[in-house]
Amino acid sequence: MSEIIEVRRRLHEENDRCAALLRERFNAAGTLVVDLVSSPGSGKTTLLEMTVDYFAGILTTAVLVGDVATERDAERIREAGGPAHQIITGGACHLDAHLVADGLEASGFELPDILFLENVGNLVCPASYDLGEDFKTVLLSVPEGDDKPLKYPAIFSRSAVCLITKSDLLPHLPFSPEDAMRHVNLLNPDALILQMSAMNGDGFEDWCHLLEREHQAKRAARV
Amino acid sequence: MSEIIEVRRRLHEENDRCAALLRERFNAAGTLVVDLVSSPGSGKTTLLEMTVDYFAGILTTAVLVGDVATERDAERIREAGGPAHQIITGGACHLDAHLVADGLEASGFELPDILFLENVGNLVCPASYDLGEDFKTVLLSVPEGDDKPLKYPAIFSRSAVCLITKSDLLPHLPFSPEDAMRHVNLLNPDALILQMSAMNGDGFEDWCHLLEREHQAKRAARV
Repeated sequence: MSEIIEVRRRLHEENDRCAALLRERFNAAGTLVVDLVSSPGSGKTTLLEMTVDYFAGILTTAVLVGDVATERDAERIREAGGPAHQIITGGACHLDAHLVADGLEASGFELPDILFLENVGNLVCPASYDLGEDFKTVLLSVPEGDDKPLKYPAIFSRSAVCLITKSDLLPHLPFSPEDAMRHVNLLNPDALILQMSAMNGDGFEDWCHLLEREHQAKRAARV
Repeated sequence: MSEIIEVRRRLHEENDRCAALLRERFNAAGTLVVDLVSSPGSGKTTLLEMTVDYFAGILTTAVLVGDVATERDAERIREAGGPAHQIITGGACHLDAHLVADGLEASGFELPDILFLENVGNLVCPASYDLGEDFKTVLLSVPEGDDKPLKYPAIFSRSAVCLITKSDLLPHLPFSPEDAMRHVNLLNPDALILQMSAMNGDGFEDWCHLLEREHQAKRAARV
């Protein structure tokens, strides 16, 4: 058992070295990088479809999409007008920095103003991997229940932004946004929390303005 | 990289040896064992609360609950009247056979008629681990979307039973049960699929009758 711990430690070190190199490249280019993490089906792809569409003609965007199988999510984002490249992880339950570096190379993308990394749908494993991002954003959809931050604390304590998605379903489900927010802030007092719905557009402009501000700050830091 | 593959192969072999021993014990006792797998918040705990309540006075049940953190789910099942023991995986994203064996020991449970293993909320990693169960049951909740079987094929091809949960939300969401069922059956033509709702009770009796039949078959095989 100590052997697997040692191998894991070494893999994490290699990951962090690769992530540090990625971060240097992103910083030099003034590219804001956001790692999106959630359970399967919490709305990452839908949010990205809307976001790349919103920024068309304003800022350049691109998406690297991690999935265990299928090109489906990258296709959806391309149909929404964004450049997207699918990373098939082949069974791996999370993106790591090497997969991102290889995916970036294979995509042929110029580094855009905002690069989104859509992680594999998984609330556990992606929490431990630095991908060179500026910040992680965790999505918690209303049908999952307001207790999920306490049950999956690592990702909620490491995400600067938490999006409570599918809020249009609140009338049909026993979910307390107040409890969810309190649980998130217990783990991460600085987390910015937005309540959103792709169905009625709630919260979407706040999300886009947040990205614009963060991108401007990043660009300013480069100069 | 070949080193981590080798260590993983060895860990899987050790897991399978431990699972085989567990299966012998379960078979000797005539205990039906069901491994429940799903995304976070798909309704595993709610289903188990209802199921242990249904079987009270008919068959004995017990639940081993895997979670990264919190005793919350085991407490919910105990409140519903079932013996439940929490296995805190301490960061691990799935149950393995050793965690089940240790949890069983720590719980002090007599082997019941039906033992439920509530896995960590994760559609990827639990697919690869034999826990000595008779069959895996995967839950797919309507809000997650009907494309999830194709995106997480391993668990859907290895689960004998697929429960489409939260079907009361169908009027509010773009989810096609026909597409979901077709996708599941593409991966596993023999999968038994039930559409369920904890809110209105749909499908719940079919689930309980399935468990009764499987338990009788197991008991008969022992004699």
